Amino acid sequence: MIAHGYTIYDMLERASVMFGGRRAVVFEGTTLSYKELLARADALAAGLQDLGIAPGERLCVLSQNNLEYFELYLASAKLGAIMYPVNWRLTAQEVGHVVTRAGPVAFVYDESCAEVAKACRAVERPGLKHWLAIGGDDDALDVATLYEHDGASTRHGAAQDDISLVISTAAVDVIPRGAALTHGNIAASGMQTMGLLGLNETDAALLPLPLFHITAVGHAFAMIQCGGCILLFRRFDAVAVVSAADELGGTLLGTFPPMLGSVLDAAKESGSQLPHLRHVMGLEGPDMIARLHEDTNAQFWTGFGQSETSGFVTLQRAGERAGTSGRIGPMASVKLFDDDDNEVAVGEVGEIVVRGPLVMGEYFGQEDVTAHTFRSGWHHTGDRGKFDADGYLTYAGRKPEKELIKPGGENVYPAEVEKIIDEMEAVRGCCVFGVPDEKWGEAVKAVVETDEGTLSADDVIEYVGSRIGRFKRPRIVAFSTALPRGGDGKVDREKVKAQNQ
Amino acid sequence: MIAHGYTIYDMLERASVMFGGRRAVVFEGTTLSYKELLARADALAAGLQDLGIAPGERLCVLSQNNLEYFELYLASAKLGAIMYPVNWRLTAQEVGHVVTRAGPVAFVYDESCAEVAKACRAVERPGLKHWLAIGGDDDALDVATLYEHDGASTRHGAAQDDISLVISTAAVDVIPRGAALTHGNIAASGMQTMGLLGLNETDAALLPLPLFHITAVGHAFAMIQCGGCILLFRRFDAVAVVSAADELGGTLLGTFPPMLGSVLDAAKESGSQLPHLRHVMGLEGPDMIARLHEDTNAQFWTGFGQSETSGFVTLQRAGERAGTSGRIGPMASVKLFDDDDNEVAVGEVGEIVVRGPLVMGEYFGQEDVTAHTFRSGWHHTGDRGKFDADGYLTYAGRKPEKELIKPGGENVYPAEVEKIIDEMEAVRGCCVFGVPDEKWGEAVKAVVETDEGTLSADDVIEYVGSRIGRFKRPRIVAFSTALPRGGDGKVDREKVKAQNQ
Repeated sequence: MIAHGYTIYDMLERASVMFGGRRAVVFEGTTLSYKELLARADALAAGLQDLGIAPGERLCVLSQNNLEYFELYLASAKLGAIMYPVNWRLTAQEVGHVVTRAGPVAFVYDESCAEVAKACRAVERPGLKHWLAIGGDDDALDVATLYEHDGASTRHGAAQDDISLVISTAAVDVIPRGAALTHGNIAASGMQTMGLLGLNETDAALLPLPLFHITAVGHAFAMIQCGGCILLFRRFDAVAVVSAADELGGTLLGTFPPMLGSVLDAAKESGSQLPHLRHVMGLEGPDMIARLHEDTNAQFWTGFGQSETSGFVTLQRAGERAGTSGRIGPMASVKLFDDDDNEVAVGEVGEIVVRGPLVMGEYFGQEDVTAHTFRSGWHHTGDRGKFDADGYLTYAGRKPEKELIKPGGENVYPAEVEKIIDEMEAVRGCCVFGVPDEKWGEAVKAVVETDEGTLSADDVIEYVGSRIGRFKRPRIVAFSTALPRGGDGKVDREKVKAQNQ
Repeated sequence: MIAHGYTIYDMLERASVMFGGRRAVVFEGTTLSYKELLARADALAAGLQDLGIAPGERLCVLSQNNLEYFELYLASAKLGAIMYPVNWRLTAQEVGHVVTRAGPVAFVYDESCAEVAKACRAVERPGLKHWLAIGGDDDALDVATLYEHDGASTRHGAAQDDISLVISTAAVDVIPRGAALTHGNIAASGMQTMGLLGLNETDAALLPLPLFHITAVGHAFAMIQCGGCILLFRRFDAVAVVSAADELGGTLLGTFPPMLGSVLDAAKESGSQLPHLRHVMGLEGPDMIARLHEDTNAQFWTGFGQSETSGFVTLQRAGERAGTSGRIGPMASVKLFDDDDNEVAVGEVGEIVVRGPLVMGEYFGQEDVTAHTFRSGWHHTGDRGKFDADGYLTYAGRKPEKELIKPGGENVYPAEVEKIIDEMEAVRGCCVFGVPDEKWGEAVKAVVETDEGTLSADDVIEYVGSRIGRFKRPRIVAFSTALPRGGDGKVDREKVKAQNQ
C-alpha cells in the first residue's frame, strides 16, 4: 500500500494554480495573493532547510498571530517538519512543559512573548538548536533572514497520515498532551467545513483567534482549500474585526465567549450590520445566538468537537434543534459508549467516542496514552452526551475524571488548578470546577477548605495567577471549613459542586 | 500512529442514526429506509461471516444491479472483506482474467450472468470456495439465505487505508489491473461531491450505471454521506430513469454517452422537463450539454478522473470554461509532468499526475506496477493535459503507450483488440484506435493490413466480438495492403491514425 504524499503545502500549491492572483491573506495592511504566499512559503522553507530542519522534527512557536507564524505552517509542511504552536497565555514554566513534550529543534517567538521565551531559554535543552525571533531579537536569529534564501527547498512529500501540527490539550499530567493532527485530518476538516457551509473563493475568514487554536487552524486551511481569503489579526480586537468584516468582506468568523458579544457591540457602535458576514462558528448561549441573528444576517453554527477531532465532529445551524450540538458531520463516526465500551441506547447518556478522517493520529510521543484513548478502536473524548431519535447530540458534560473548564475557549483542567491551590499554606483541600458565566461562557470556581478568616479570595486568585496561566485563575472563590469527603478521605467533587453551583 | 478504524459501513451507521426513517434506496418498487438498509446489511454480514469470509478476502460479483449487489458492499465493509465487482459485459474468458487477479473466496452472480459464471466455474480455482447466486441457481447458494442468519457479525473496524473495493481498469497485460480504493478514498470522494454540489438529505441519485463503475459507486456513497436516496436500476433504461426522476424525485444523474441523449429523448416523449433533476455528471460533447441546459434546469458537471482517483479530480460546472475539464477539486493535488517527472509550464502539455485523499491505495496485488505508477510519489495517470493561467485543465489524450478508447464510458485498450485481430488468418498487422462518435462519445476503429478482398469489415467485427467483450468490437474497419511502419518494422500508429481519422 502506498503512503500517499499529501500535505497542507500541496493544498497551498493547488490554490496557487487555481486562484494565484486572488488574495490569500491580509494582515495589518499587507495583502498577499496566493502566488505571493506560495513564494514566501517556498523562501521560508528553503531558509528552514538551510538551518538543517529535517522531516519529523518539531518547531515550537510562541507568538501572537502574524504572517510569519502562519507561513511557518506552510513551510514546515513542505519539509515534512511538524509545527508545535504554544499558547502565549501560559507562564514560562508551563511553556517549558509544552517544550518538554514537543522536543523541538527550533523555538520561534515574537516580541510579545520575548520575556517568556528567554525564561525558557535559561533551561538547558540539548535538542533545541535554534532560537528564532519574528521581528528580530538579541541572540536570536531574525526569521526575516530565512526568507532571503533563494535556493529551492526539498519537497518532502509527507504522507497524508504524517503529522502536520500538534495542538496542546489536557495538562492533567503536568505536561500537556499534544493532539497530533495529520495532513489528512486538516484536509478532511477543511473539506467538511467548506462543504457544509458552501464556502468558495469569494469567502474570507476573520481570524482573531490565536493560531495555536484548532478553530483558527481549521478555518485558515478551509480558506486555502476553497481559495478564499484569511483576514488575520495579531490578537482579538473587536473594532478591528468589525472594520475588516466590512471593508475586506469577512464572511466567516470563529469565536469563543466573550468575543462575539464584543464584536456585536462594536458593530452597533459603528452602525454596521456586518453585511458580508454569513457564518459564525463557536459555542455561545442562546441569548447571544439570538442577538447575532437579530443584529445581522449571519448564521450561527455550533457543534461538538475537540482539538483531538480537528474541530467539530457534530454540528448544526443553531436553531435547527435548539440546545443540541447538532448531528454527525460527514467525515466522522460518532457513538456513545458506556464504561465497558458498549453502545448506549438512544436517549441514554454515554461517553462520546469518535473515529474517522477527522480524528488525530496520536497523542504526540505518548504511545500508552494513545493506545488507552483509542481502546476498542475509538477515540474516547472524555465528554458525555446523548442522542435523540434524529441523531442530534446533546452535550452532557465531561466525564468526572476528565473534567475540563472552558473559559473563553481556553482549556483549564481542575486538577491542575487544584494542585496549585493545595500548595498554599493553611489550605487543607480544595475543589475546582466550572460554572456558567455570561461573558466567558464558563468560569473557574474554587471551593477552598481552610480555617475561617485565614485566606481571602484575592489571595487564592493571585497565588494561582502567579504560578500558571492567568486565564486559569479562579474567578470565584468560596471557602469551607470542612469539604464533604468520601470514605477514602478524598473530596467528594459532586457534593461540593451540588452545594456550590 | 493509530490505524483508524473507519469504513463505508460506518458511513451507513451514521446515516442510520441521523436519517434512520428516511428512504435510503429504491429498487424496482422496493423502498428501504436507512434503518432497514442497515438491518439488511447486518444480516448479510452475519451470513457472510458464517460462510467463513475473513478480513482482506475478496468477493467477486458478476451481476446486473440489484439490492443484494449494493448490500454486499456494505456487509463486506463490516467484515473488512473486499468487494471485487466484475463488468458483466465481459466474456467468460475475460471474467476469468479478472478472477485470476482478484483471487476471491466467493463468486456472486445473478441470473443474467449465470451462463458466464458457469463457464468460469469450469476452471479449477483452489481458493474460490463459495459460489453464490442472487435470486438462486442450481449448485449455487442462494444469497437470500445469507440474510436469514440472525446472529450478529463481528465488526472488523477496518482502517481508513484498508481496501474497500477494487475496480478493474486497464487490461493491457491481458489480466486487468484493479484500482484498489480504500475506505478513506470513498469517504473523501463522497465528501467532495457532496460539498461541491451542495447535496443533502433531500437529494436522490439516479443510478442506472452499473455498480462496478466508479461513478455509480461514488454517487451511491455520496448519498449515504448526505442522507439522500439511491434510485437503483437493474440496468440502463431511459424511460425508467425519466419516470423515477419525476415520480421519486431524482436530483443527480451520472451518465456516459449515449445515455443522456436517450434520457432527454424519453423525457421529451413523456412531456417531462425533469423538474427535480439538478445535477448531471459525466463526459458529453457541447451539443448534448447545451441540450440538457435547454431542456431542463439541471446543471451539467464535467471533469477529469479515473477509477484510480475515485472519480473526478478536476471538475467544473459545464460552461464555466468551455472545453476544459475544470479545476482541481479540494481533495486532490494535480500536476502535469514531463517524461522526467519535472513539472511543465502553464500552457504546456504534460502527463496528469495526482496525489491526495482521492488516489487509490494500489493496483491490487501488483506491487511492481504500483511502485512504477507512483514513481516520484505521484500517481501517473497515463493521460495528458495542460493548465491555463487560471488552473483549468484541458484534456490532451492518452499517452501513446497507454492509449485507451472509451465507447460509452467503457475502457477499451487498443493493444487488447489488436492482439485478437492479429490472430486472424490473412492479417499481417493492424492498428486500433478511437475516433469521435456522436452517440457513444468515442468508437473503436481498426485499420487492418491484408490483401485486397480477403476480409470484410463484418469478418473482423464478428471475430473480435466472439472472443472479447462485445463493446470492444471495432465499429469501423478499414483495410490497407501496407500499413506505414517504422524502421523496426512496427506499425507507425501515429501515421495510421493521421491517415484514417
